[in-house]
Parts: sequence; structure tokens; C-alpha cells
Amino acid sequence: MVERTLMYGNHALVEGVIHAGCRFFAGYPITPQNEIPEYMSIRMNEVGGVFLQTESEIAAINMLFGAASAGVRAMTSSSSPGISLMQEGLSYIAGADVPVLVVNVVRGGPGLGNIAPAQSDYFQAVKSGGHGDYHTIVLAPYSVQELFEFPKIAFELGEKYRNPALILADGLLGQMMEPVEIKGEPVDPKSLPEQDWWLTGAKGRGRRVIRSYDLRPGKLEEWNWKRWEKYQKIIKTEQRYEEIKVDDAEIIIVAYGTSARVAEAGLRLCRDKGIKVGLIRPITLWPFPSEIIGELSKKIENFLVVEMSLGQMIEDVKLAVEGRSKIHFIGHPGGGIPNAKEVYDKVLEIRSKK
Amino acid sequence: MVERTLMYGNHALVEGVIHAGCRFFAGYPITPQNEIPEYMSIRMNEVGGVFLQTESEIAAINMLFGAASAGVRAMTSSSSPGISLMQEGLSYIAGADVPVLVVNVVRGGPGLGNIAPAQSDYFQAVKSGGHGDYHTIVLAPYSVQELFEFPKIAFELGEKYRNPALILADGLLGQMMEPVEIKGEPVDPKSLPEQDWWLTGAKGRGRRVIRSYDLRPGKLEEWNWKRWEKYQKIIKTEQRYEEIKVDDAEIIIVAYGTSARVAEAGLRLCRDKGIKVGLIRPITLWPFPSEIIGELSKKIENFLVVEMSLGQMIEDVKLAVEGRSKIHFIGHPGGGIPNAKEVYDKVLEIRSKK
Amino acid sequence: MVERTLMYGNHALVEGVIHAGCRFFAGYPITPQNEIPEYMSIRMNEVGGVFLQTESEIAAINMLFGAASAGVRAMTSSSSPGISLMQEGLSYIAGADVPVLVVNVVRGGPGLGNIAPAQSDYFQAVKSGGHGDYHTIVLAPYSVQELFEFPKIAFELGEKYRNPALILADGLLGQMMEPVEIKGEPVDPKSLPEQDWWLTGAKGRGRRVIRSYDLRPGKLEEWNWKRWEKYQKIIKTEQRYEEIKVDDAEIIIVAYGTSARVAEAGLRLCRDKGIKVGLIRPITLWPFPSEIIGELSKKIENFLVVEMSLGQMIEDVKLAVEGRSKIHFIGHPGGGIPNAKEVYDKVLEIRSKK
Amino acid sequence: MVERTLMYGNHALVEGVIHAGCRFFAGYPITPQNEIPEYMSIRMNEVGGVFLQTESEIAAINMLFGAASAGVRAMTSSSSPGISLMQEGLSYIAGADVPVLVVNVVRGGPGLGNIAPAQSDYFQAVKSGGHGDYHTIVLAPYSVQELFEFPKIAFELGEKYRNPALILADGLLGQMMEPVEIKGEPVDPKSLPEQDWWLTGAKGRGRRVIRSYDLRPGKLEEWNWKRWEKYQKIIKTEQRYEEIKVDDAEIIIVAYGTSARVAEAGLRLCRDKGIKVGLIRPITLWPFPSEIIGELSKKIENFLVVEMSLGQMIEDVKLAVEGRSKIHFIGHPGGGIPNAKEVYDKVLEIRSKK
Repeated sequence: MVERTLMYGNHALVEGVIHAGCRFFAGYPITPQNEIPEYMSIRMNEVGGVFLQTESEIAAINMLFGAASAGVRAMTSSSSPGISLMQEGLSYIAGADVPVLVVNVVRGGPGLGNIAPAQSDYFQAVKSGGHGDYHTIVLAPYSVQELFEFPKIAFELGEKYRNPALILADGLLGQMMEPVEIKGEPVDPKSLPEQDWWLTGAKGRGRRVIRSYDLRPGKLEEWNWKRWEKYQKIIKTEQRYEEIKVDDAEIIIVAYGTSARVAEAGLRLCRDKGIKVGLIRPITLWPFPSEIIGELSKKIENFLVVEMSLGQMIEDVKLAVEGRSKIHFIGHPGGGIPNAKEVYDKVLEIRSKK
Repeated sequence: MVERTLMYGNHALVEGVIHAGCRFFAGYPITPQNEIPEYMSIRMNEVGGVFLQTESEIAAINMLFGAASAGVRAMTSSSSPGISLMQEGLSYIAGADVPVLVVNVVRGGPGLGNIAPAQSDYFQAVKSGGHGDYHTIVLAPYSVQELFEFPKIAFELGEKYRNPALILADGLLGQMMEPVEIKGEPVDPKSLPEQDWWLTGAKGRGRRVIRSYDLRPGKLEEWNWKRWEKYQKIIKTEQRYEEIKVDDAEIIIVAYGTSARVAEAGLRLCRDKGIKVGLIRPITLWPFPSEIIGELSKKIENFLVVEMSLGQMIEDVKLAVEGRSKIHFIGHPGGGIPNAKEVYDKVLEIRSKK
Repeated sequence: MVERTLMYGNHALVEGVIHAGCRFFAGYPITPQNEIPEYMSIRMNEVGGVFLQTESEIAAINMLFGAASAGVRAMTSSSSPGISLMQEGLSYIAGADVPVLVVNVVRGGPGLGNIAPAQSDYFQAVKSGGHGDYHTIVLAPYSVQELFEFPKIAFELGEKYRNPALILADGLLGQMMEPVEIKGEPVDPKSLPEQDWWLTGAKGRGRRVIRSYDLRPGKLEEWNWKRWEKYQKIIKTEQRYEEIKVDDAEIIIVAYGTSARVAEAGLRLCRDKGIKVGLIRPITLWPFPSEIIGELSKKIENFLVVEMSLGQMIEDVKLAVEGRSKIHFIGHPGGGIPNAKEVYDKVLEIRSKK
Repeated sequence: MVERTLMYGNHALVEGVIHAGCRFFAGYPITPQNEIPEYMSIRMNEVGGVFLQTESEIAAINMLFGAASAGVRAMTSSSSPGISLMQEGLSYIAGADVPVLVVNVVRGGPGLGNIAPAQSDYFQAVKSGGHGDYHTIVLAPYSVQELFEFPKIAFELGEKYRNPALILADGLLGQMMEPVEIKGEPVDPKSLPEQDWWLTGAKGRGRRVIRSYDLRPGKLEEWNWKRWEKYQKIIKTEQRYEEIKVDDAEIIIVAYGTSARVAEAGLRLCRDKGIKVGLIRPITLWPFPSEIIGELSKKIENFLVVEMSLGQMIEDVKLAVEGRSKIHFIGHPGGGIPNAKEVYDKVLEIRSKK
């Protein structure tokens, strides 16, 4: 089945979530993502799922913990301050190895900030804003199509590795209208194979326990090292990115989400003038596509990071290039959005310094 | 005045806080740091300060926001999960440029974890676990003496830059008994010069406003860039660390807090055998002492990071050495503690590979 | 359909709730009523209803408000301290004329008290523990059969008058095992006729609003007087009670719930000795059966109130007899339970004074 | 010292609280009583007391519990919905026999209602809106002078009996400006004699425990009976009221607070016409002045209750007259206020029926 239809980003995300077989949503309202819970409340009702407006973001993330522990694909969405309130819960979920989906429609920060699109929650997302050693799988959509497709990928990766997943989006994508291709049959939640950790009632089998603590000496360290192995496997296997015009490029832009859209437009301006610019668009922010960037850094002298923040992903790019290349930066914090001309100008500037 | 006395780490911290003129404590109990609020409740009462056991960690961090906005040196303490709950509040405080002191007595994580000492909240501390572009000044004491001294430094740095500060400690330090030298007169809160942003009542002057939001187009971006300049200044000016036997070293260990104590013992084992090992002990984790490490990396081939986590500071060391040196690692997550012999063995192993 | 089966009181209540077509339960755990949510979580799942363990009792009562506003039969259960936390919410619900069912399994109070059965929340139940002029319909079951039957009555009365209803029970009833007759077909929630105030989505009709405030001058007073008329109608029409051996009685006992069971046993001891004792067992505590008691007071000189409290219902009996009769009292506060011999002895004492 | 000054009711209350030696205020804002915390925040600061804006009303009442347990005169103020949220805490405080002062500036209810003055929280105040058998001493000021004086009385009665006290006021009184006589020296908190239950630190003495639970069989019942004895003593000793023109009256009005002001004006209209009307103004609502009303009912045929509610105090008047007299009623629920003419007309109507 392939269906093509025009959708708002926020609606596409909701449809993608339902399509992925998610039947539990809990959340608390915050601008600029209120279209998600609003539309979700209608859709969940139609498909017999649970939509819950909770007392707070803390209630929401903990209800996700419970729902997902019972074997339900469960999600919440919020925006920056709300996601900060979920950091304790996220750490518990990660420490209990439970897959859930959290969507952060990032707004300008820090603090109350504003409600313009931003990418300044990058560190929180990829370096574990909660306490303890853990990682969340982070996906960064850059089109309405990807808003539709990534929930399914997030649930599948989350379940494959028993790990929470986060979709890092911004308000611009959510308000955008683009054609979406709906491929594949929607997931029937009942068709999902029961996992050996689901808390479905112990009748006829031994009891199962989901928890994030272990007070027995040495046991928590052991457990964490096992989780570390899982993280290594994810890092090795799941780096996702898109390459655009990388083959002959002399300068490589690294950008994700809305910044990648702008970067791509900037790239086209450059290419129109015969300037060979390429783009690496990370799709997973964790694991970060270090391998391809590290590889490219062996021949590329200049990387340009474009980010709607003071520069956070820049660190991951630096870690990947290990001193082999120069890293340049275009940044817009606090809800500012870069534009194509700015990218073009920056490329010219980089070239002139050579 | 110099007074020498034997103290428990947790008590030394409280005395240091009072000595620094702090007169407002708000917090919610959590193991393994309950000696801090318990002793604080007695001491604050004695010095006419406010001790407040709040309803939750969220209440605590927001009360700090209020108290500090009124020109009071204010602090809270908690342990990992409690600190996660404070991430939203911390982002608000950072976004409003208000100096407060947060103490995290890190325990094994993620989630509930256990109550053993750990260093696995490093990322949360130095990469801003809350949302938005901000930084917290992070100090890492490694002795009872420093537990006494760092609160004053934290308040002074915080006020100098109008920035929140965090002391990253662990349960081991708190339970340790060591001699403490009390140098200098205690700070009289009334002697602190009134700042032009203190909310002290507008009688006879124009009103002042403290907030973290700005909805006017472009203003939040502007504000964030100004804060970025502040961060650059801090990074340039405030990197603090201790060098131990670095001059002739062929291998450099990088470790902080309890891990640095162990590393130092390991260093002595090495030196006893004539192996030239040095130690860089970061005192500020943000700003990270990248400069000295970067400088050293020009001649040192091997660095060894020792950390009570799966390896988080390792990234900051990598960012400093920019591919020039190899980085080795000893890690104990989930409450495990390294020992001197382990460090010694690792050093031997590194040397054997040359 | 008549089915006869042996059930625990708490399970009978749950079955009665489901049988009554209730499909929404929200609550927070508290002893001694945890068997209710536990069993409810299983049964709601089986019948496709919603079971929600909320963050707090405050969340629970407010979720009831929402669910019932959408036309769902909705209930919560708790015990004394938890019911106190719901008083604000209950006042809002009563002020918005929304029918919900609250079950209070009363424990010894005040404060934390203990977990023994009690009746000391009588005033809270019948005199409106929340703020403002309102009344809650209060039913007092005294057998497992009534625990099964009263939820349906509570929903029907609640809907008839658009008024919240409360079942006042105690832990003893809940733990008791008795035969239950299941009469009548279970209510199919879909068969309930849509009310003109249900918030079901305004498509194709004008919008409806449910609220408890009216700031327009004089409007709230008007609204309250209308509600007063409703209360008068309930008082006139819905007084329910059971008469036991009242016809020839010279002394009348007034007791409800577990106290009525004890009183009935005491009555039998008296009757065995030829002492003509009768029992009025209030089934509705609000509206209180004042009419029958007032009528009886014209010929009965002595009433004996038996209550597991310091004496609260005694006031309603006094209000009914209007000075015409003497009122005696057996009371056991704080979880104490009266016994039949005590009732018998008290009756002898009353007779001896004549 | 006698000082005469013109004050707003809300300010007079705050001054009275400070004058009474109270040095701890915790509360959460709600209209129409926000002048109290606002002015309190200034005054507490001036006298070295604690002013705390808490996270919620629930936090406030529980902080009062703590502060008062430590031997501090502690108070909170709120309005109807906020007071409902405090019912659980109040029950805990009453169950632990701790004196605190709660001020309820009653607004129109139920639910959100409106912000006009009301008296519809009478039942909640006098019949214990929380769970369990307990009573709160309730004082009803009817002038700015009494707003100033009653806090001291409330603290003294509360401490005498180890019992919480409540001042039931309304917005009209708070906004009124009247001359206040400040008599007597302000209470120095340090001069208050230490009680044997204050939790002041156990150094040099055995430990003390304050709690509201007792799980040992029979102990809670015993405790509650002891508290009952206290209540009987209060009922016997502390009924307070003002008699106005009662001696030769043929009709007696019963009214408190703002209603009593209106009733008094109505009484004057009647007296001007030679109609002998008297007024009993309850000052304590619990204990209710039943004795004087009971006594009067032996010769007075008609009582008129004037209340800003649907009629709640009417029950207490009925309980006092025990069927001997007729009780008439003027009621204004939902923020309506009676007027003198209405009272006059009602008196005429009552007389015409004779």
C-alpha cells in the first residue's frame, strides 16, 4: 500500500505514531507542540488507544514507563522545559532498559526562552541530561515525510535494544505542509511478539521484575557494563545519515533537521556557482555518524557545522575529526534560524582563507 | 585567623557554605547526602539563616531561584535523581543569569541505581542537562579541605559571572574525616555589596526584572550571544586544575574527585618503581582545563583517564588533545571504585604497548 | 438473570461498579482499600475500561471530573486521608453539577490515624468537607450484597440529579465474605442515553461548557439557589433507610454500615429477652432519613445512636427529633468496633433510667 | 500602650498576627486575600520572621505543621478552594494536637465560584472538613478591630488546648477601613514559655515525638477519647458571642461576620420603628454559643438566621433550640450580600405570622 497525501508535520508525526502501532500517549501541554496532543487525542480515540493529559510532565514520563513495561508502544511529546522535567524519569527508564518514545519539539532556551524553533537541546538529548551512565537513541527528522516515518524506526530500534528513543524536532517542521508517502501496512499492536520482559501478569509463569536499582555489591557495575556493550553495538551498527553531494566536495557541511534544510539550500547556491560543497545530514544524533565524518576528515580540510544553537553538535564533529580538519560554525541560538545566503557566504569566507 | 580541625567531609561542606556567607538552604532528602541538610538545619538556625525542607527537589531549586534573585547566597544539595529533577529549574536560573550553588553528591545510576559513590553525572553537570544553551560552573573537590573551600569559590565565581555553580562530589568524600584549615574571616552576608540586579524592593529606584524569556523577535538570540561571550571569558579565565609530577612525566593521568585520590595513590606506586607518571586533576570540570591538557598533548603520547563511570570526561580530554595523543581508560560505573593497583597495572600495560 | 455467588466485599464493590456500566477508574493507593484498585485494574482491562493509577488523589478526582464530563460513568476509591485531599476537586465537581462516584473506605483518624475500620468521616461526607454550598449524595452499604448494588444506585441518583455521589464504607465490610445475588443485566455503557451536557465534541451542534464559576454579578447566587431547589427535591424524595422491628419498639437504635450490623445483633439479644428494640438503618446518609426518625420521635422516648466515631450522626438524629426524644450514644472512635453485648447493656441502662 | 489608627482589614489582620508574636507565614496566593500575604511578606521581613510563598496550599499547611511543632506561632491564609486543599493537613495537625492558625477569607463557591464575599465554608470550618473526629476552634471577626485582635486570641486558645484554630473572614471585611485600637504590648516570641511538646532538639533531655498515628490496638481510640474530653472542655468554657439588645427582644437574630454587621443595621431599622429585635453574634463558631441560644429559646419564639450561604449555621441554631422555637432564614449564597432593609422586612413578615 502506498498512499500519497499532503500533511502538516505535526499531524504526520501523529499519523506515524499510530501507524507504528503506538496506542498509549501521555503528555502535558506546552507550546509549540500542542497540535500533537490535540490531534493525538482524536486519533487515539479512533483507534482504541489511550490518550492521557497528565497532571505534569513528570506524571507523563512515569506513565510511559509503566505502559511500556506492560508491552505497549508508548510515547509522550513536549517541548524543551517539559523535556527537562522528564530527565529523572528518562534516567529511570534507561536504567530499566525499557523502550519508550519521547518527542521534543525544541524551542528557544534556556529557561522559558521563547517559542521559536531551536536545536539547543542537543546536549541534553545526546549526552544524557539525566543522571547516570545511559544513552537515548536520538533521531532527527528533517521533513514531514520523516516525521511520519521516524516513530516506527524509533520504536523498532528501542525494542531491538531495549532502550528509550527520542525524536528531536522543532516547531518549523511541525508547521510545514508537505506531501507524505504512507508506505506499508499499519502495525497492529496485537501482532507485536510478546517480549520476555513484558509485565503482562504472571499467571502460568514466573514473575518478572522491571527496575533500575540493584543494591547488591558489584551488581550495578556489572549491569552497567552490560548496558555499555549494548551501547557499543548501537554505536557500531546504527549510525544513520544522509550524504548529499559528498563525493566531489571540498567543503562538507554537517547539519540536521531544519538546519539541514537550510544547509541544503545553501549548498545549492554554492553548487550553482561551481563551488563543490557536500552535506552530511545526521539522522541519528546518538549514535552520532562519527564514522563517515572521521573517514571524510582524512581528505576534507574544512567542515562547516550549521546549528540553531550556540554550537553543541560541533563537539561531536570535533570528536570525529580528531584534529585532522578545521571546523567552522554558523549558529543561531534562542530561536534564530539560519538562511541559505548565510551558508553560501560562510563557504566563500572559508575558501578565501585557504 | 587560621584554625585547624578534624571534620567529616559533609560537615566541612556545610561549614564552608556558612563561612561563605550563604544564609539560605532549601532541599529535599536523599541518600547519600542527608548529613548535609541535617547538619545544615542546625547551623543555619545558629547563624540566623533559612533552612527549608521543601516538598520536592523542584520546589527547592525554584526557591533558590527566588532567594538568590533577592541577593542572598543560596544553595541546595541532593544526589543524582534529585539533581535530574532540578534540570528545568537550573535552566531557568541559568537563563536568568542568577548565581546559585547546587551540590550533587553523585550516587550510582542511572535510575534509582544504588547509594554508592559515583561520577556518572559528569555529562549532566558539564554539558547542561537542562534545555537550551547554557553552562554551569562545575567544581570538583577531592579532599575535605576542598569541600570546605569550594562553596566560597563557587559563590564568588557565580556572582562574578552571574552564573549558577555546581559542586560535583560523591559519598566517599562526604564520609571521610580529614583535618581542615579554616583560613580567613567568615563572610558577613550583610557585607556583600548590593548588585544592580538584586530584587530588593523598588522603593526609590526603578524596577528590576529577573526572567529567562524574551519573546521579542531576535532579542533572545542577542541575549544568548551575550551569554556566549560570558562563557568564552569563563573558559579563557577560569580553568582550574592541580598538576602533580607533570614535569618529567611520560604518561599523564587525568582524574578528578575521589578518582584523583586513587589515581594519586597509583601514581605513587608507579613512581616508587621509577615509572614517570603525572597527574592532571581538573578542579573546574566546566570550564574544563583543556588548555593545559592540549599543551601537554604536544609531547605526551599517552593519557589515562580514571573515572567512576563508563567514561564521560574522556570526551573532554579527547577534545583537548585533538587526536595528538592516545587516551586510555579505567572506568567503574554503578558505584564501583577504582584502586591504586589497578592504575599501576594499567600504566604498565600502556608502557608495554609502546 | 439471577446469579448467586460468594464474594469478598471489596470484590463485590468492583463487580457492582462494572455491572453498573462504569468504565473509568482513577485512584491512588491507600490502605485499607487497595484490593479495590487492584481487582479493578484486572476487571477494567477485561471489559475494555480505563484503569488509571494516578500521581495523587488530587489527580484522581480531577480526572474523574474530566471523564464524567465526557459522559462516562467514572469512579475513584480511597480512604480517609486520600478523601480529604479530594475535597477541593469534589467541590468543583459539585459546583459543575457533574455526577461521579467516590468510595471512601473509612479508616481510623484524624491524621494518619490507623488502618482499622471507622465511621469518623461522616461529617466530611454529609456536611460537604469542601468549600461552598453543596451536597454529595451519600450511601452507606452494610452488606456485601449492598456493596455490589449501591454503585448502580449511586450512578443513577447522581445522573438523575447531576450530582456527585459517595459510598461510605469501612474496611470490615470490604474483607467480609458473603453470598451476593447478581440481579439484572449488566449496564452497557453504550446504552446510556446521551445527556445534553456531555462534552462529546461539538461537531454539528453548539458548544457545551462545564464549569463551576460565574463571575457575572448575581449569577452565581442564582445558580446556587437553583441547586438548592435540587437539594430540596433530593431531601424530599430520596431518603432511604431500612426499618427493623420498628413497629412495636420502645427504643429505637439508629446505626449505619458496620455499626448497623452490630446494632442488629444487639437488637436480637434484646428481643431474645423480650425487650422491644427497633432499628432504623440509614441507607442514604445524605439525604438523612429525618422524616421517619422525626415521625418516630413523636412516640419514641429514647433513641440510641451507635457509631464508630465520637458521635457525628448524632447531630442529624437530634435535628430530626427536634427535642422530642432523648438521644443516647455508643461510640468507638479511632478504629474501635462496638459489639452486640455493649448495645444490649446500653439498652438495659436506658430502660433502667426511665 | 494604646494606639489608635486607621487600617484596612487585611492589614489589621497582618498587624494582629505580628502583634501576637507569630513569626512564620506560609501560603499560596489566591484572590480575594492576596493583600494578606503581600503585606505579610513586608512585615515578616521587618520583624525577622519567615514569610514563605509555597509551591501549593498543601505545602503551606504541612509547613505550618512543622513550624508549629518546633514551638513557633505559625499561620497561613487562603480562600475557599485553597482551604479545601488543606483539609488533609488540618486533620493531621488536629490529630497531632498542634496549634496553628489558618485564615479563610471565604469567597463564593462551590468550585471556582467567584471572588465575592461569602460564608458558605461554615460547615467545612465547624464540622471538620477533613477526615476523622476532630474540631478546629473557629473565630468569626466582624470588624477591622477584631481582625486585629483575633489572631492573638486564636493563638492563645490554640496553645491552651493544643488545637488548631481558624479565623473565618470574608473579602468585605478585608477591604474595609476602620479605626483600630492597638492595646497592650506586642508579644515577644522569645517570651513564650517552652512547652513540653515542642520539638526543639533533644540535647539534654529525652526525645519528643509529634505524630497523628497510633497503630497499637486500642491506643488510637483511647487517644481520641482524651481529645474528646478536651473538646467537651472547650465547648463548656469557650463559647464566645456578643449580645446586642437581647434583654427585651421578642425576635432574636443570629448572625456572624459581615452578616452580623448587616443584621445589626437591620436591627436598628426595627428598633427605630419600636420593634424589639435582639442580635446574638457568635464570635466562636466552634464552639458554637449553644448555651445562650438554648437559654433564650426558652422564651423566644422566633429566631432569624442571616447568613451569606444557603443556610449552614441554621443547623447549629436548631441543635441549640431543640425544637422550642421557630427558625427563620435570610440567605445569600454565591457571593450575594444581604442588606438591612431585607432584615427589616423579614422581621415584619415573621411578626405578621404570629
